[in-house]
Amino acid sequence: MSTEHPPTAKREQSVTEEVLASFSKAADPRLREVMQSLVRHLHGFAREVRLTEPEWEKAIAFLTRAGHITDDRRQEFILLSDVLGLSMLTVAINEPKKPGATEATVFGPFYVDDAPEVPLGGDIARGAVGTPCYVSGQVRSVDGSPLGGALLHVWGADDDGFYDVQYGADHSAGRGWLRVAEDGSYRFWTVLPTPYPIPHDGPVGDLLKAAGRGPMRPAHLHFKVVAPGHRTLITHIFVAGDPHLGDDAVFGVKDSLVVEAEYHAAGPAPDGTHPQEPWTSMKFDLVLVPDQDH
Amino acid sequence: MSTEHPPTAKREQSVTEEVLASFSKAADPRLREVMQSLVRHLHGFAREVRLTEPEWEKAIAFLTRAGHITDDRRQEFILLSDVLGLSMLTVAINEPKKPGATEATVFGPFYVDDAPEVPLGGDIARGAVGTPCYVSGQVRSVDGSPLGGALLHVWGADDDGFYDVQYGADHSAGRGWLRVAEDGSYRFWTVLPTPYPIPHDGPVGDLLKAAGRGPMRPAHLHFKVVAPGHRTLITHIFVAGDPHLGDDAVFGVKDSLVVEAEYHAAGPAPDGTHPQEPWTSMKFDLVLVPDQDH
Ligand SMILES: [Fe+2]
Ligand SMILES: [Fe+2]
Repeated sequence: MSTEHPPTAKREQSVTEEVLASFSKAADPRLREVMQSLVRHLHGFAREVRLTEPEWEKAIAFLTRAGHITDDRRQEFILLSDVLGLSMLTVAINEPKKPGATEATVFGPFYVDDAPEVPLGGDIARGAVGTPCYVSGQVRSVDGSPLGGALLHVWGADDDGFYDVQYGADHSAGRGWLRVAEDGSYRFWTVLPTPYPIPHDGPVGDLLKAAGRGPMRPAHLHFKVVAPGHRTLITHIFVAGDPHLGDDAVFGVKDSLVVEAEYHAAGPAPDGTHPQEPWTSMKFDLVLVPDQDH
Repeated sequence: MSTEHPPTAKREQSVTEEVLASFSKAADPRLREVMQSLVRHLHGFAREVRLTEPEWEKAIAFLTRAGHITDDRRQEFILLSDVLGLSMLTVAINEPKKPGATEATVFGPFYVDDAPEVPLGGDIARGAVGTPCYVSGQVRSVDGSPLGGALLHVWGADDDGFYDVQYGADHSAGRGWLRVAEDGSYRFWTVLPTPYPIPHDGPVGDLLKAAGRGPMRPAHLHFKVVAPGHRTLITHIFVAGDPHLGDDAVFGVKDSLVVEAEYHAAGPAPDGTHPQEPWTSMKFDLVLVPDQDH
């Protein structure tokens, strides 16, 4: 047994070099690049903070708990990425730079694949409780041409701040998809979004609490817009005046996505219906970038 | 809706700054330090590799799979930390710098809390199949004083490379703890360790495969040594001549931990027993550092 240990900095460096070398044989050069960069930054972090063994154990326990709370309807790792800003950074890195395009924001954990189709002008609320909200606008390309037939997926929380998937398995509400008109115009009814907390009864919620951060997101409605020949747009519209626009737990707010909600007394709406209760409306155009332009 | 987007680098920087600021309110200054460093390095990684959205999705799916395969007997997050060298780096950062102390290595995922006590000189194999191996040595402090009464926890894989916990719930084998003698000496029987693959039927195994890395660990026996007034030592002894000493999947090998195994014909052993089959022996002293010295 040798009695001389190499000095700490040298030992640490040699671990990092050994790990970097172990990834040099990856057949896929992109995997090699990503893993070597990950190792360099992960090790850089541990060295910088002088990570202790109890802290390492806490990290393992955190990830384990996150894994065990995650299922078909709860995605703690997306929440983690969201509250660490990695989701918004990934959006920023990949977003098209085309002037005039609608800005993107986080996807979030509440999209589902099998939302129902609704007709143009239909109601996606389907039982979600809240103030009726008529949402309309146009889907077009950055050159101004309407994107007739584009698919518009919409999802939002109800008045209590919950998505349908948070209530249990047996009904779909506050979500749907529709095909926009030939002139790119779209319209549908839903309920006016309200601010809500991200799920915070798991490890991510504990992290936010320990960090003195709140779990709230400002009121928003999610959009995913798919049009042939165009980059799929994933974004929200936020409701102007919301008290949480300045401290979104997931850093998703962009000024260009904040929309004024108009309030109306019960009575005729633009689509010829006559709501029996006060209702609201929001207008927002969705501008996509051609595939070859980003 | 604004028609001018800030340039990419500026947008990316502003996400990072917003996230760093969100952690500035943490009551615990250490949490603030750790999380801000983590965010800086995590974002630095994503920016450096220009992380794509499909890659982000793969990372979420990887962590989700790791979470779901993890249970009381399988710890995929520790394996992940191990194959990324984070475990060994954490050891390197925290290891005492005292000359003469036994070097530490990775804890690994196979320790269990409720291993059986065995008497000094007893057999921890308890049914684990393999060549009998008599392990002995002394537990002492760096100043040479014996650490009588220290607790020695030992665990190892059997001849097929499996730990008892990998077989199922109903027996404990190849592990145990004992109290060393007043003169610090210890001895016990087990089976000679053989090289084994870390569990590689999960996401970590897929990562190793994609990276062109093998899952093997060189033959080793785990030790955890607990003595009053001393820093707990977590280490292995490795068997000299093992073909995997140069490519341990978890980077745990240190030259000072490699021990010659002596081979003996059936016949008398140092403890007065007479093994009926060929047996082996290994000698290794375990030298701990007083609490105040690291
Ligand atoms: Fe949402
Ligand atoms: Fe092991």
